[in-house]
Amino acid sequence: MAEIFPTARMRRSPYYEATLAEGVTAFQTYNRMLLPIRYGDLKAEYERLTRAVSMWDVAVERQVELAGPDAAALAQALVPRDLSRMQPGQGRYAPLCDHFGVLVNDPVLLKLDEDRFWLSIADSDVLLWARAVAGERGLDVAISEPDVSPLAIQGPKAEDVVAAIFGDWVRGIRFFGFADAEIEGIPLKVARSGWSRQGGFELYLMDGTRGLDLWRIVREAGQPFGIGPGAPNPVERIESGLLSWGGDTDWQTNPFEVRLERYIDLDVDAIGMPALRRIAKEGPRRHQLGVMLDAGIRHEPHAEWSPVTRDGERIGDMTNGIWSWRFERMIGFGLVSRAAAPGDRVEVHRGGQALGGVLTELPFV
Amino acid sequence: MAEIFPTARMRRSPYYEATLAEGVTAFQTYNRMLLPIRYGDLKAEYERLTRAVSMWDVAVERQVELAGPDAAALAQALVPRDLSRMQPGQGRYAPLCDHFGVLVNDPVLLKLDEDRFWLSIADSDVLLWARAVAGERGLDVAISEPDVSPLAIQGPKAEDVVAAIFGDWVRGIRFFGFADAEIEGIPLKVARSGWSRQGGFELYLMDGTRGLDLWRIVREAGQPFGIGPGAPNPVERIESGLLSWGGDTDWQTNPFEVRLERYIDLDVDAIGMPALRRIAKEGPRRHQLGVMLDAGIRHEPHAEWSPVTRDGERIGDMTNGIWSWRFERMIGFGLVSRAAAPGDRVEVHRGGQALGGVLTELPFV
Repeated sequence: MAEIFPTARMRRSPYYEATLAEGVTAFQTYNRMLLPIRYGDLKAEYERLTRAVSMWDVAVERQVELAGPDAAALAQALVPRDLSRMQPGQGRYAPLCDHFGVLVNDPVLLKLDEDRFWLSIADSDVLLWARAVAGERGLDVAISEPDVSPLAIQGPKAEDVVAAIFGDWVRGIRFFGFADAEIEGIPLKVARSGWSRQGGFELYLMDGTRGLDLWRIVREAGQPFGIGPGAPNPVERIESGLLSWGGDTDWQTNPFEVRLERYIDLDVDAIGMPALRRIAKEGPRRHQLGVMLDAGIRHEPHAEWSPVTRDGERIGDMTNGIWSWRFERMIGFGLVSRAAAPGDRVEVHRGGQALGGVLTELPFV
Repeated sequence: MAEIFPTARMRRSPYYEATLAEGVTAFQTYNRMLLPIRYGDLKAEYERLTRAVSMWDVAVERQVELAGPDAAALAQALVPRDLSRMQPGQGRYAPLCDHFGVLVNDPVLLKLDEDRFWLSIADSDVLLWARAVAGERGLDVAISEPDVSPLAIQGPKAEDVVAAIFGDWVRGIRFFGFADAEIEGIPLKVARSGWSRQGGFELYLMDGTRGLDLWRIVREAGQPFGIGPGAPNPVERIESGLLSWGGDTDWQTNPFEVRLERYIDLDVDAIGMPALRRIAKEGPRRHQLGVMLDAGIRHEPHAEWSPVTRDGERIGDMTNGIWSWRFERMIGFGLVSRAAAPGDRVEVHRGGQALGGVLTELPFV
């Protein structure tokens, strides 16, 4: 689409040279870093992810570290979930909300110790958000971005690859659980995590000078399992119903609109709680449904939200859209009025055309 | 360098199609939008900017609007300058600091009315920063990103172009001053502003559906003055000593390190003031100087900070570097120890080489 001109504002991943050597063909930017997004053949990458195992440079998932006597208090202020029973070595999906209940990010929270946490963030400045809250409350907590760069290993054979590297003990790690490990002197954390529904792990590299070594180790260990380079896959994630903060949300979106209600505990004292309680009681104005376009319609992936109408009336937007090999249709998510329901016929407006389709439950079945 | 793959996270400028038609060859990303950065010939763009007039799509300068009864109180909390004498229609360069005095952005603050302000931001989430502070303080202020997209007109003939469009009254606008205007029914604000030292204006387009019309109007009015497309110019801005927040700063940088002390009023009650007073008293640990490499050294613009040594000892980093046609040298900024001074011989380490040079005052003379 366009060349990116390098700049000091755009930091490089520790895996950058490896992704070039693997033949990366396109990037997105995320948290002011380059995110490798394509290696030339989306379908091959999709099949590798869904049938074997894929390795992804997701160093753009920056960590925001909370450390110090008030780290736990700050974590509970930021995260509208009950963290009281969380143990070191556990992670939690943590939709962060502002004082009006609007989603500002949806990180995974990792509890490293009683007084140390990481937020593994989506594409907004959680560092600023956390520093503002801590500063305003006078909390005794250091907030920083440590030298940590996740490498994801995703797919049905991911566990075999990670076990081949670190040993069979990793098979006992529960979802969002993590443990310290080391390979060839490289310090890292092994977490069962990742932005796909194919199962997998993320290796939280804790020494940015060793990225190319870690890439090589995973590449070699994965060879017998058919590993290859990949990236967060827009087809798989939509087929699986995974949310993209900032892609599928806007600056009005609350968690109840985008199927995150089970991650909100209304009885904790966190930012946005009065607003979240009110929305929970009254119900959100919009909700997220699937959109499946009619057979025979096929076009480029959506790069912008597309207006959705029902009986000629605007009911919301289709926030993404891509060809699904599983459903052999264009599919995506709709952020639409609560008056719209699964089964409704709709039209999606894109490039001057009105494309017919139907609303569905999510995830797609 | 690499292709950018489109995504809904990356919003398009209202001028996007016009920049494509003008032959844009490279983008950067900034505030999750594409910033056109090159039209194929940097030297021609530099000469157009410094000798005639250039037009830039700087819609990436997003506005964060503060509106409501507590808008002025929030502005004064965020901006460590005395705003008490600021009048509607005036702007101020406003380095925003966190509670430790660290720069979190360096917007221009525009006072629209007694209870309405815009922060025209650099590349970080000031919306989140402002919402956190307002939310924590319980301020009655709405914080939003309005539909506003600046188009910059920069260069010695910029005023003539803007006067040709709007009338000679614009010649009376003072630096960072602005006024409402309309052309062909397009609502906008005309501000004397812009990220160059060549003089110029920014048109704050207030209707994103009219971007291509505004581009055409400026293009046609500028024709007799030699206007052409351009972008924030890395050569001119470094020659002129202009700071790039996020490019020349890191998450430890305070305003005293990067020549912004004259924009800080130590007697106001703003975030970070105790830390700023302490730094002002003790002196910062680093300062920003010019770096001029020796004659004969010429290479690609720096895309990363480059370590700087003096007598073999690391004293800091060169945060940018580019060939200057004015000085016929590679020049850039150094963020270096206070022990380093103009005139010092240094070595800049880049791509395995040690390049000789000298520290200078800023701006370069």
